[in-house]
Amino acid sequence: MDSIALDITAGIATITLDRPAKLNAFTPAMAREIVAAFDETDADDAVRVVVVTGAGRGFCAGADLSGGPGTFDPQRPERADRDLIGGAPRDLGGVASLRIAASTKPVIGAINGPAVGVGATMTLPMDVRIAAESARFGFVFARRGLVPEAASSWFLPRVVGISQAMEWVATGRVFGASEALAGRLVSRVVPDSELLPVARGIAAEIVENTSALSVAASRRMLWSMLGASSPWDAHRLDSHVIATLGAGPEPLEGVASFLEKRPPKFPGSARDATPGLVPHWPGPIPG
Amino acid sequence: MDSIALDITAGIATITLDRPAKLNAFTPAMAREIVAAFDETDADDAVRVVVVTGAGRGFCAGADLSGGPGTFDPQRPERADRDLIGGAPRDLGGVASLRIAASTKPVIGAINGPAVGVGATMTLPMDVRIAAESARFGFVFARRGLVPEAASSWFLPRVVGISQAMEWVATGRVFGASEALAGRLVSRVVPDSELLPVARGIAAEIVENTSALSVAASRRMLWSMLGASSPWDAHRLDSHVIATLGAGPEPLEGVASFLEKRPPKFPGSARDATPGLVPHWPGPIPG
Amino acid sequence: MDSIALDITAGIATITLDRPAKLNAFTPAMAREIVAAFDETDADDAVRVVVVTGAGRGFCAGADLSGGPGTFDPQRPERADRDLIGGAPRDLGGVASLRIAASTKPVIGAINGPAVGVGATMTLPMDVRIAAESARFGFVFARRGLVPEAASSWFLPRVVGISQAMEWVATGRVFGASEALAGRLVSRVVPDSELLPVARGIAAEIVENTSALSVAASRRMLWSMLGASSPWDAHRLDSHVIATLGAGPEPLEGVASFLEKRPPKFPGSARDATPGLVPHWPGPIPG
Repeated sequence: MDSIALDITAGIATITLDRPAKLNAFTPAMAREIVAAFDETDADDAVRVVVVTGAGRGFCAGADLSGGPGTFDPQRPERADRDLIGGAPRDLGGVASLRIAASTKPVIGAINGPAVGVGATMTLPMDVRIAAESARFGFVFARRGLVPEAASSWFLPRVVGISQAMEWVATGRVFGASEALAGRLVSRVVPDSELLPVARGIAAEIVENTSALSVAASRRMLWSMLGASSPWDAHRLDSHVIATLGAGPEPLEGVASFLEKRPPKFPGSARDATPGLVPHWPGPIPG
Repeated sequence: MDSIALDITAGIATITLDRPAKLNAFTPAMAREIVAAFDETDADDAVRVVVVTGAGRGFCAGADLSGGPGTFDPQRPERADRDLIGGAPRDLGGVASLRIAASTKPVIGAINGPAVGVGATMTLPMDVRIAAESARFGFVFARRGLVPEAASSWFLPRVVGISQAMEWVATGRVFGASEALAGRLVSRVVPDSELLPVARGIAAEIVENTSALSVAASRRMLWSMLGASSPWDAHRLDSHVIATLGAGPEPLEGVASFLEKRPPKFPGSARDATPGLVPHWPGPIPG
Repeated sequence: MDSIALDITAGIATITLDRPAKLNAFTPAMAREIVAAFDETDADDAVRVVVVTGAGRGFCAGADLSGGPGTFDPQRPERADRDLIGGAPRDLGGVASLRIAASTKPVIGAINGPAVGVGATMTLPMDVRIAAESARFGFVFARRGLVPEAASSWFLPRVVGISQAMEWVATGRVFGASEALAGRLVSRVVPDSELLPVARGIAAEIVENTSALSVAASRRMLWSMLGASSPWDAHRLDSHVIATLGAGPEPLEGVASFLEKRPPKFPGSARDATPGLVPHWPGPIPG
């Protein structure tokens, strides 16, 4: 992998967008490598949480524009060899963001610098976003004659509310970490030097205390129910999952370790969150 | 009723989870009694608002684990005699929370102490949640090898947003009232001694000023439209309800009392919010 | 137009509710004129942003009650000559709010004084709401024996969250600008004298920096995806829009102006956001 780096330590995979000379600008190759990295973190039981950050001064400055004004021409060869959805070449931001959405491990975005365009939208399917003081954000699409991508028309209003989403998208404004915090795009702003320690602290809280199986199932349940029309859908799914898990070893260990006041050692893995237990989210690419 | 207490005074029903020696831990009996209590508050026109709180130091410490590590085994006799949904025994947290969701009277959660597991999730279908300073919260399911229940995968992201929901669910962290306030799980934090007075103050604001019929219809309209794909659904429902109510006595009194600057005396009741006026929410148990 | 005024200057249309002797109380004529004004702003390429405010001390005090207690009787002649939806006369608040929702230009509500009843609900489909210090708000329907209208059962919980929405609707409380800000009904509170300058500052940020076509397409994408069950719907739409726009002149100018560090001069207009590019939202009146 040339565009990103992947490190796995103490249950935490760190994916680093790694084109620092370009502020980690997004390319088709980076999209493919993000997909491959999440395939790897999902397959590896040693990974419990994924942290995504950027190398150098930036997080991701958006689409690499070194190809000039014609960058978004769909006829360009590097853009044309793609899978289709609804008859159109798949937006590469969406290829990345929907793969992140499907992760069975929770994902923490550690935004260390400018996160602009797809650099901002790719973080929306992550579960937690924290920012360094020097982070900056921009949903700048309308300033480039484009539209929000990476499925952000679905994600952004659900993360920050429709009014805040529309203000950022309609103005295309670039804004700092404090505006991101006030608008609930990030949950914390920390000094630059503390960004990764804080991100890994949240990750360690998950690694040390929770069941990988429970977290994988819960992640799908919460995200998928954002699209459900009735809480009865959740009740039906809850009842199925609890009846299935409840007969197995996972809650036996969870309750026993709690009653014995000791750390749990859960037997399950995220891969046990099979589609028979809880359906994949957001599911396979539709036709 | 052994597990809860019900008091009705001045238009306000107070449901008190009442197993203080166990921090009001949740049992199958408590689930049944919550359902019965809401059946009673819905049927009684003297009740305009429901306040739910806990006896003693706690609100509800979660599922009663005195049965030991096998508590969640669906084969246990006390868990097996339940209605089915989707072929599985109904999650008892969902039995309670969906009954609360269906209340025709608004519900105020007055969280006086630890609200953990189902003690936290059962509050999500309530309309308003306020916390005492000593309240604590935890969506601890992943620490017990379980998953969020009580239809909280549907409710929690709608109440606090998907990012905050995922952080609390993935870490399973127990947190205090100030974090609950910052994360919008509760709308106010008050000194312990003021919790019930403040809750009853909000309730009195409803009792003294509003139409029971209007509140019942509005409650269903707002919650049900969370699951609607288009505002046209709301416009169709609005138009029907307004054309029906507008021809009756309720707005005559509402407008007359306003123009005459006197307190209203509305003739209607919550029971007049028939399914023909506005459909029940969340509707009957699906197959 | 008797009930409202329309001014167009520097790309910004200002719609002023203009019955100041009545605190701009809402009438059937005002509903029709709001529809006509948005038809005009949509048709006029010189308009990039719409600002809505009130003349005099108020924004809009709600439905005009000068007809007395029978105001909401659907048999009144001025209420009976209306289109039907679902067999009922269309709620006139919804006629206005759904037309605002369908605007191809972003809409900024500049709330200068009391915004009560339909005066509050008509602002919910606007993209940004800012308040003067003397603004007041009230979803007072339950105090009048009515229910929330103008499709606000759909909009309000999406703008402020279901818990805040239910508290305001169940109490029918009238509240000030600071409570509106804390509850995220407005994004800023400014001194009265700065209200229109601040609103026009946000509008100018849009006018000077963005593509009208991009903003029109983005507005529909974000609002419509609030009703979509899966981010795949967004990905399919993104991919279609980007493939179409990407082959045209709009991003050529956007990227070129960015690389050349000069203001953009976009060739497109909001009218280029045809239904073939991105479907109208919220679409035509259903049967």
